[in-house]
Amino acid sequence: YSSTATRTVTLIPGDGIGPEISASVQKIFAAAQVPIEWEIVDVTPVKGPDGQMGIPQALIDSVHKNKIGLKGPLMTPIGKGHRSLNLTIRKEFELYANVRPCRSLEGYPTMYKNVDVVTIRENTEGEYSGIEHIIVPGVVQSIKLITRKASKRVAEFAFKYARENGRSMVTAVHKANIMRMSDGLFLQMCREAAEKNPDIKFEEKYLDTVCLKMVQDPTQFDVLVMPNLYGDILSDLCAGLVGGLGLTASGNIGEGGAVFESVHGTAPDIAGLDLANPTALLLSGVMMLRYMELYDHAAKIEKACFDTIKEPECRTGDLGGPAKCSEFTNAICKKIEAAG
Amino acid sequence: YSSTATRTVTLIPGDGIGPEISASVQKIFAAAQVPIEWEIVDVTPVKGPDGQMGIPQALIDSVHKNKIGLKGPLMTPIGKGHRSLNLTIRKEFELYANVRPCRSLEGYPTMYKNVDVVTIRENTEGEYSGIEHIIVPGVVQSIKLITRKASKRVAEFAFKYARENGRSMVTAVHKANIMRMSDGLFLQMCREAAEKNPDIKFEEKYLDTVCLKMVQDPTQFDVLVMPNLYGDILSDLCAGLVGGLGLTASGNIGEGGAVFESVHGTAPDIAGLDLANPTALLLSGVMMLRYMELYDHAAKIEKACFDTIKEPECRTGDLGGPAKCSEFTNAICKKIEAAG
Ligand SMILES: CC(C)[C@H](C(=O)O)[C@@H](O)C(=O)O
Ligand SMILES: CC(C)[C@H](C(=O)O)[C@@H](O)C(=O)O
Repeated sequence: YSSTATRTVTLIPGDGIGPEISASVQKIFAAAQVPIEWEIVDVTPVKGPDGQMGIPQALIDSVHKNKIGLKGPLMTPIGKGHRSLNLTIRKEFELYANVRPCRSLEGYPTMYKNVDVVTIRENTEGEYSGIEHIIVPGVVQSIKLITRKASKRVAEFAFKYARENGRSMVTAVHKANIMRMSDGLFLQMCREAAEKNPDIKFEEKYLDTVCLKMVQDPTQFDVLVMPNLYGDILSDLCAGLVGGLGLTASGNIGEGGAVFESVHGTAPDIAGLDLANPTALLLSGVMMLRYMELYDHAAKIEKACFDTIKEPECRTGDLGGPAKCSEFTNAICKKIEAAG
Repeated sequence: YSSTATRTVTLIPGDGIGPEISASVQKIFAAAQVPIEWEIVDVTPVKGPDGQMGIPQALIDSVHKNKIGLKGPLMTPIGKGHRSLNLTIRKEFELYANVRPCRSLEGYPTMYKNVDVVTIRENTEGEYSGIEHIIVPGVVQSIKLITRKASKRVAEFAFKYARENGRSMVTAVHKANIMRMSDGLFLQMCREAAEKNPDIKFEEKYLDTVCLKMVQDPTQFDVLVMPNLYGDILSDLCAGLVGGLGLTASGNIGEGGAVFESVHGTAPDIAGLDLANPTALLLSGVMMLRYMELYDHAAKIEKACFDTIKEPECRTGDLGGPAKCSEFTNAICKKIEAAG
């Protein structure tokens, strides 16, 4: 990408607090003069050919065209015939690697110091295959599907990510002692990727062991790669170490595009009240800017965000502060403008 | 059980450090005049009718006869044709509930204060079904099997456990938003058990959310019940909060019997060197005594153990202390004898 040409990015504001935090990100991006134009799409679920409610065609078309998107939280209606729209987006565009960095914020200290880990989660299959059957009444099976293709691409992605981001180690997280064939195949792909990337240290560990060690000393980990469900679990655990889902970024990355999203909920209880914390969506946006190679804009926004969180009176309610979403947003914009 | 009649308990010393920590427990139980006799069985794996290596008949017979056992760590040989002997024991005797209490030790402070949670793990099916297939080369499936019967009994067990142990809340941990049928069935059984036990508070939470919240504030949880793999993960996470697997007890409980075990590894690097920490096996033994309604013996041993850990010079190497396994053991025995 050229860093001067304006590019179009799909913006999916989402439900609940989605619209307000999206507006906040737009305002901050404008203050930083980020050379992007937003194409805003709405996600009222529509009934697909299979009778299931799914994402509307306009969204699909927009992401296919722009190949890049930023997304707020989406609500999944309860009941049969609804599948998670969040997941549908990941699968529809084959966004096979879900990247979630978790770093301690200097300005918002927690019990843990110097956390700096990145979970890379296989994002298209595994326990999320959606294949389930009732064998006989009272006996149900869910199928965990692991393929060589999806395992290989995410394993290779992890090493590439590590190298490009100046990181030194990849840990494959698995339960191949129990799921010998499925996790075994995943692990084998990680080992093969490790062999092709001898400059990056490689280790393999059981998921249970990683959880135990993570809460004792997260600084022993760096980049971690794992099947879908394990990534769901471990990324939330890591987010917990640094302050929760309101502060962590997430990117879903594939061959043909990427969608960055905040992974917290829609918080319907505070929606529309100007009380939400836009940080997770903003930092997801920063991750997106780096993906677009807009490094200077990314750094400027990130610094302004972290510096604002450092000031207790600028913090939103979830971080124990008095600020409204708009006040927090304005404080960030001011810092960006002051930095010039 | 009468608390005076001597009962026979199967003792499976296990591999690596297993024999030394088992000897330690025997010595401490003797000092406390626990009215049990040990029947020691060894677990050299034997080839079963299916060609797989399994547990020997003598062990099976002993546990069937005594209906209660204490077990050190077992090594699983690497390679095809071996299945985990630890798991085989759980399945063979239908020990359907795996109970793992995690409590902060006053004498061994960690970052977390006042942790006091119990994970109850379905112990016979789920992701541990062992059913896996290669569909076509490069495409593998592992089957998670959830039955009404196994879910119901462990859900009901959790409420019974909560009541008998003076606890007030049970949290069902699941991913029924993803595995709607399998975790959905598990969750339904938990809801039905909750309805029958209105004196115990009930809540249901996603596994990822529980992990996030657990590392932020474990005191918000009490008893947690969940499918097999989730229990494997969450119990290790919780153990990490209070000092690791060397300090936590575990019991596998079924209709017809129970086997208590330390869930740490065999630590081959320090085996035979008198360096191991017997605490996990000892506390598993204490849990066993309570199961046998030998409450006074249990309390006496537990107190002596905790008091010994309080003294830094009595701690074993894994806790940063200088004591040998035998010295730690003797210190506990002395306290028991002094208490009379
Ligand atoms: C909302 C839910 C379906 C989703 C998941 O399980 O992946 C969420 O927990 C996440 O991590 O993005
Ligand atoms: C040793 C291993 C097979 C076992 C498991 O996965 O259950 C262990 O982690 C445990 O928690 O007892």
